[in-house]
Order: sequence, then C-alpha cells, then structure tokens
Amino acid sequence: MTYTPDRMNPLKACRLGLDTHQELTIYLRQDSPVCRSEGFSALSRVLVHTENQHLIATLHTVTGALLSPGEIGFSESAWKRMALQENTSVWLSHPKPVQSLSYIRAKVYDKELSGVQLEEIINDIVAGRYADVHLAAFITACGGDKLNIREITDLTKAMVNSGSKIEWGLPLVVDKHCVGGLPGNRTTPILVSILAAAGLIMPKTSSRAITSPAGTADTMETLTNVDLSLESMRAVVEKEGACLAWGGSVKLSPSDDLLIQVERALDIDSEGQLIASVLSKKIAAGATHVVIDIPVGPTAKVRSNEAAETLSNNFKAVAATLGLNISVMFTDGSQPVGRGIGPALEARDILEVLQNAPSMPLDLRQRSAEVAGAMLEMAKGLPPGEGLKEALAILDSGAAWAKFQAICLAQGALKSPPIAPYRYELIASTDGVVTCIDNRKLAKVAKLAGAPADLAAGVDLHCKIGDAVLSHQPLLTIHAESTGELSYAVEYLEEHLDIIELSSSQKADA
Amino acid sequence: MTYTPDRMNPLKACRLGLDTHQELTIYLRQDSPVCRSEGFSALSRVLVHTENQHLIATLHTVTGALLSPGEIGFSESAWKRMALQENTSVWLSHPKPVQSLSYIRAKVYDKELSGVQLEEIINDIVAGRYADVHLAAFITACGGDKLNIREITDLTKAMVNSGSKIEWGLPLVVDKHCVGGLPGNRTTPILVSILAAAGLIMPKTSSRAITSPAGTADTMETLTNVDLSLESMRAVVEKEGACLAWGGSVKLSPSDDLLIQVERALDIDSEGQLIASVLSKKIAAGATHVVIDIPVGPTAKVRSNEAAETLSNNFKAVAATLGLNISVMFTDGSQPVGRGIGPALEARDILEVLQNAPSMPLDLRQRSAEVAGAMLEMAKGLPPGEGLKEALAILDSGAAWAKFQAICLAQGALKSPPIAPYRYELIASTDGVVTCIDNRKLAKVAKLAGAPADLAAGVDLHCKIGDAVLSHQPLLTIHAESTGELSYAVEYLEEHLDIIELSSSQKADA
Repeated sequence: MTYTPDRMNPLKACRLGLDTHQELTIYLRQDSPVCRSEGFSALSRVLVHTENQHLIATLHTVTGALLSPGEIGFSESAWKRMALQENTSVWLSHPKPVQSLSYIRAKVYDKELSGVQLEEIINDIVAGRYADVHLAAFITACGGDKLNIREITDLTKAMVNSGSKIEWGLPLVVDKHCVGGLPGNRTTPILVSILAAAGLIMPKTSSRAITSPAGTADTMETLTNVDLSLESMRAVVEKEGACLAWGGSVKLSPSDDLLIQVERALDIDSEGQLIASVLSKKIAAGATHVVIDIPVGPTAKVRSNEAAETLSNNFKAVAATLGLNISVMFTDGSQPVGRGIGPALEARDILEVLQNAPSMPLDLRQRSAEVAGAMLEMAKGLPPGEGLKEALAILDSGAAWAKFQAICLAQGALKSPPIAPYRYELIASTDGVVTCIDNRKLAKVAKLAGAPADLAAGVDLHCKIGDAVLSHQPLLTIHAESTGELSYAVEYLEEHLDIIELSSSQKADA
Repeated sequence: MTYTPDRMNPLKACRLGLDTHQELTIYLRQDSPVCRSEGFSALSRVLVHTENQHLIATLHTVTGALLSPGEIGFSESAWKRMALQENTSVWLSHPKPVQSLSYIRAKVYDKELSGVQLEEIINDIVAGRYADVHLAAFITACGGDKLNIREITDLTKAMVNSGSKIEWGLPLVVDKHCVGGLPGNRTTPILVSILAAAGLIMPKTSSRAITSPAGTADTMETLTNVDLSLESMRAVVEKEGACLAWGGSVKLSPSDDLLIQVERALDIDSEGQLIASVLSKKIAAGATHVVIDIPVGPTAKVRSNEAAETLSNNFKAVAATLGLNISVMFTDGSQPVGRGIGPALEARDILEVLQNAPSMPLDLRQRSAEVAGAMLEMAKGLPPGEGLKEALAILDSGAAWAKFQAICLAQGALKSPPIAPYRYELIASTDGVVTCIDNRKLAKVAKLAGAPADLAAGVDLHCKIGDAVLSHQPLLTIHAESTGELSYAVEYLEEHLDIIELSSSQKADA
C-alpha cells in the first residue's frame, strides 16, 4: 500500500488586528473544510507555511462571520513575525512534536538537563515554538532552586548564543546589576554617569521590570530615548563612553524577553533563570567586569544572609566558568532607597542626586557612590574605600551630571519625567516612630497604581525607618494616571495599613 | 484629601464568535478611552461586571475595525459563562490579586500546602479565576511527586467539594479505575457489564483521554450517548444497575476537567493530581468500593514494581483517610491489550469480547474478567480465584452482552462505531519474532492519526510479543479521518520503526 500526502489548496492571509501579545495565534472558521479535514480544534498547535517561511501558532476558531471561507486570520504578532501581505497564500499542517518539551517534563521529575537540551529549549523559545502555557511550565519547572550550577551555566551560554553579541574590542568593559526587590533603588543611571566620567567604558543595557514597579529601562524612558539599535548604541558609547539603553531593542538574549512576559503574569522567580538572565545579558553586551548588588532584608527579594551567600556563590561559580570578572556586594535591603517608586518618580530622585539638589535623597546618593566605588576598586585596582571617595568627588564636582546630560543627548533627547494627574495621600493616624516598611506591599501599591506601564504612576514615600512622625503628617502619596488604578491602589492600601508600621512606644516612654 | 472612585460608562457586550476554548477572553479596542484610562494592556487580567454578575478574563486588544467604539467583545467561553445578550451593559475594573496564586509560588519553593490553601486554589480554578498560564504553573509545580499524602488527601477533598456529589443511599456502590498508559486496555465497558449482570450497582463515570489516544468516555461515545445529566444517569442506574457515562457532563469534580485540558497541552502527569483526580471522581460519584488497576511495564505509565508499590501505597493511604474501600491490582503492562488503539477501534474489540466472537482478542477478555473478579471478591467476600471464575461464566453465558445492550439502550442509543476512510499498513521487512512493543510510541502514532478527537482514528495492531511473523506480513494499520493526519502519523512511524522490534535470532538458530 503506497501513500502520497496531498498538498491542500492555500488559504488567503487576513490581518484581523487582534493583539494576543507574544502568543502567535491564527484563526480559522470552525466550518472550514481545512479545519474539519485536518482535524484541528481549539488549543491545537498548527504549522503555518507560506512559499518561503513557516511558524508554529496556536489555533483559535471562529464561529461567526469574521472570516470568509478560504481565509485564515492572523494575530498581530504572527502577522508581523511572518511579514505577511493581505491575501498571501498560506498552507497549514501538523507541526512535529517539539522535542524540547520532553526535557521540561524530565525537569518536573527533577532530572538534570544537559547543555544540549537547554540549548534546544532556548532555541525553540526564540523560534516561537512555545505557546504561553509551555513557557509557564518551563519557568515553573526551573523555579526556586531547581537548576544546579552546571545547568545554570549552560542555560546562560544558550541564552547568549540565541541572540546578538556585541564585541567592543576593548580589554575593560564594565557593567552592574542589582538583584531587585528593593523599591526605588535606582542607582544605575547615577553610577553609569560617575563611572563614565571616571573614564570607564560602560555600555549599559537594562531590562524592564519583571515583577517590580519599575526597571531601569522603564525609568530611563521618562528621561530619554532607550530604544536604541545596536549601531546607535555603539555610536553613543564611542562618543560618551557609556549609554543607558533598553536591552530588548538590541536583541541581546532574546529568549529572556519572552520569558519575562510570562514570569510577570505568574510572578514566579527562579534563581537559576535569574542568574542566567543577568549574566547572559552582560556577556552578550560584551562586559568583562561586573558588579552585582544584592540588597538583603526581611521584605527584599533576598531575605537572609544565608540566601544572599548562596546566590552570591552561584553567581561567582557561573561567572568564573564563563570567564567573567564579577564582584558581589550585599547592601541594606530593609527599606526602599530614595523616595520615588515608579518610573517617573525614581527619575526625579536621580536628577536631584546628579544635580546635588538640597532636597536630594541622601541614601540614593550614598548607595550609588558605594556601588560605583566597588567597580572603581575592581577595575582600577584601588584600595578599599578609595573607590567610594572618588565616586563622591565626581558627584560633588558636577562631572556626573554633565556626563548624564551628554549621554541622554547622544541618545537623542533629555526629557522631563511626566507627572501623574491623580493622587492620594496616606496620613499618619497617630504620633510615632517608623519601625518597619514592607517593601513587597509597597511595590504592590505602586504596581496597582499602574507602574511600570503608566510611567508617571507609583508611590512617593515621605518617611524612612527611624523617623519620628506626627499625627496627620503624610506618610506616602500614591500617583496614578487613571482613576481606575488609583481606586484599586487605595483599596489595597486601606486593607494593608501595616505597610508602614509606627511604634507609639516613644509616647508611652515619654 | 478625600477620594471617590468614579463609575465609568458601560460598554456594550458583543459576541465576536471567537472560540478560545476554556480561557475566558475579552476584546477591547486599543484606542478605546476605557483601555487607555484604565491602563489595560495585552495579557492583562480584567474584572468584567454586568448588573448581576462578574468574572475575571484575559484581555486581548483589537487594533482593527472588529469593534465599534463603546463595544466590548467576548470569546464564546466568556459569553456563555456570563449568559450574555447582545448589548448587555458591561463595566470593567482591575481584579483583586488572586491570593491562591501565591500558594503556587510557595509550592515552587517546595513548601507544603495546607488544606485551606488547596481548597482556595481549586475554588478559584472552578470560578474561572486562573488563566491557562496559571493552570500550567499549578500542574507543573505539583508535577512528579511534589505533593505529599496529606496534600493529596486535601486536594482530593477540595476537588470533591467544588462540584456536585451523588448520593445513592446504598451500602455498596462499586467502581474501578485503570491508571492508563497501556494502549487499547479498554476493560471498563466489559467489566461494568459483568458486574451489573452479577447484581452489583456500578454507576460508572469515565473521563476523556488526557495524554492517551482514548479514554473510556471517548470509546463509549462511538457506541452510545455518554453525555448524561445527573437525572438521566440516575434513571439508567435504577433500571439497569449500571451506566457508562462521561464524568464531565454531570459536573463531578469540575476542576479536573479544566486541569485536564492544560495537562493535555503540556503532556505533564503529576502523581498527586492523578490520585486526587481519580479518587475525587469516585467519591463524588458516590462509590464505596473501588478497584484500581495499575499496569506495569517498561513503556507503560508505571514502569517499575517500585513505582507501582509507591503509587499503590499512596492510593491506599489517601483512600483510607477518606473512608473509601479500595483494592489495588498490578497487571502486565508490557504491551497493548486487545488489538485496536483509538475510540472506535477499541469499541470494536469490546463488542467482539461481549459477543464471544471467534475472532475476539483473548487478552482483553482475560484482563476484563480478572479486574471484574477482584471486585466480585472484594464486594461479595469470595475466596481468591472464585471472582475470576464467576466473571468468565457471566461472559460465556451472554449475560454480560445482554446487560451491555440494555445499558446502552437505557442511555438512548446502541450505535455502530465509525470506520476511518484513510489507512496505512506497516509491513514486516524480514521474518522474525516480536520481542518488544513500545506502548508510548504506539500511542503517539494513534494520537498523530487523530485519536481521540477523531473517533475512528487510531492504530490496529496485528501482532503480540512472542508472535512469529513473516516478511511482508502486516504488523499494524494506521486509521485516520483525514489525509493530513494520516500523513503525519506515517511520517512519525517511518522515523520510529523500532515501535515493533523483531528478533531474527530464530532464523539464525534454525
């Protein structure tokens, strides 16, 4: 018995204008001969061909009149990825099983994954072969501490190799990363300005927020253009010694950007994926020396010294295998740094520090100078303490502010951060001393208020641990771009008034 | 500063006719004032209100002209769940964070979940508060052996309590379950007929396939109506002592049906969720005595005696706490049972056994009688071996066949299984003896051919381990309802000709 597969009649591509975000989706009429004869049903994965390319997409079916017979609809993501034209001829078939999904099943049973397996997973993700549910399974299976050092190292390599790499041809290219979890801790733009003013080369690419109210890219977006091509990034760095760009726009470690979308929806962090995400971006960006800042505190991302030590050791082990020089520092993570939480509010704090404004948040200035100092000591071989001194001197002289303005202008703009139209103040109900600030709940309020998607949204904090406050004094202000979001942030705040704890013991003792 | 949330203008509900399966989805114009002012963006979760109800849905945005200003589109699932009419007034807001998602994050870090936490997760799933990515994270986090006995017991209770429960008011209601993984092992319809003919009460509800080419409900669907309401199920059981219904239609353990859709897409099994899924359905269906059949073999779902012992002990421990009598038996899982793999082909085998046809697959007859025998021994207190004898006698007498027909007619129909129009035969290339049959790859071929969605699709196996076959003799036949699916199943088969291994040693020895 011989058998020859038929080539079916093509369908006509049709742009439906539906934005399903990163999930590549196609739409077929439920009564279409193709849908029936090929046996596709809802949630199926489908192989979509044109004359010269193909992709795997999720199938949604259409029961109404959105499509004519013989048409196939595309989501915006699928339409753009295939660079289609209206009425392009399209064929469908069954995709081969994605082999790398079986490695995720193995990981669920705590099997160690090989370098080749991790590479296949990452390449399939970049090629768009994973639906969102598959990305969710990968993130969850590798969550917590389920990846060992070897796996993290191989995952990092795979992520570097799946995207562009920048070669600077220089012996010393510096970078830094802060392991988030601390609202408002936006030191990067300040220390990039310090280090570039000190003559170091720092082509900084930053991510957007994953589960926090702002990433450095979100904050910088309120001040300048961060969506730089590789060429313009190179031009900015050649001119000013540094840049402050969004990493996603230069296609460094592109799988990371896809994973981040689903991590945000799940709010699940994975230590292995964290290390791979951070180091793959640094290596792809061509860094040779990196400072990692790990804030430690009861409500920070890293909650104990033991956890910080483990994370630090894992970072060092992976970096060593990959030939990257790193210096890990632990910083105080007991409360937010600066006053603003959210892209524009953090940008305001940064400008105050760079401009040596009398009102500037001193803790943000100090923290930025400490991290810059650690880098100066590693890169220039300075004795302990000398780096911090040099960093503070560069801030005091105005050289950092001059450098920051030059970088922004080289990136095409120096903008004023936007200001939110809707606000709500939380007022102290008694006199007392601030004993505790809950970073996580504070971040939640800022996110509910709309940060980071709404750049002006967030929280402005008016007190720090140890401050004495009086009844009726404002403790924080919520900023929002819409009443809907302000409404929800306020509702959450009123259910969680323990975000800022006041001790009345001073009164009792007095 | 006081603050009153505004009530926004309502949107008009619009049925778009888009089938997104179980993911409740709404569609908004990207340029709509609501979308902008409320800060919604793609992949957001949205709280959707009408005057008298609400649900949480995933937001997709529309860039084209699918919606007029002031309209909100609904997927079929969301439209039906809210029982909407065209132009119903709809309001949107931000959903409160789904608290139970934080328990999944805790599980990723290997934390034990409390009964209350598991109950919250299951209730949120049933209420539609989980997007598909959240279900994927829950399945993955609990995958493998990540749930302990107490968690499995509490998960089972939560699943029972989240749906309907049937009270029979009888001291003895029997049921059985086979822990899949063995293609063609469709004993249920046969043993239900035997046990009902023996006077036991067996209101059998079965699931559809999760990751296999057919579930009992898929197979029975080719023979009768399985989509019974609770009332008609009760009527059938009162009349005939047994039924063969699909569990999903009577809303027993409804969370299970939602989880199964995503488990199918991920192809991830979880021991804890397996036990909870099986026992919750049995308890909700009102069973008092249950036989669990665990086939053990190198390519079955359970691959070793140790794994079978562990699974058996876990089943017994959970059942004991929940007051259910169970008997666990291990059966041969080294190769398929019967000849057909796929709903209609398995139905054909079942009819042959019940009718004592000369061509009947003897292994399916024997296996069905053994499981029925174990139940007769447990339920009637018969000595070991007497149950099997009685079961075989009931088959021989034709009483089981008479009972099967009566049950099907009481359910509304006795149909002939459909026959597939497209076929492909795999021919032996040499003489030899069958040494090995790969259950998993065989199941894959049947699934690629379209089973279980295409009822007539699957594989017909023409040999068993130990059979001597001659060159040019057919080893198996693939059945498909479409050329597209036949094409892909053949392609996979040709890349995996080791599915049936032949030893030529007999010839060498001869």
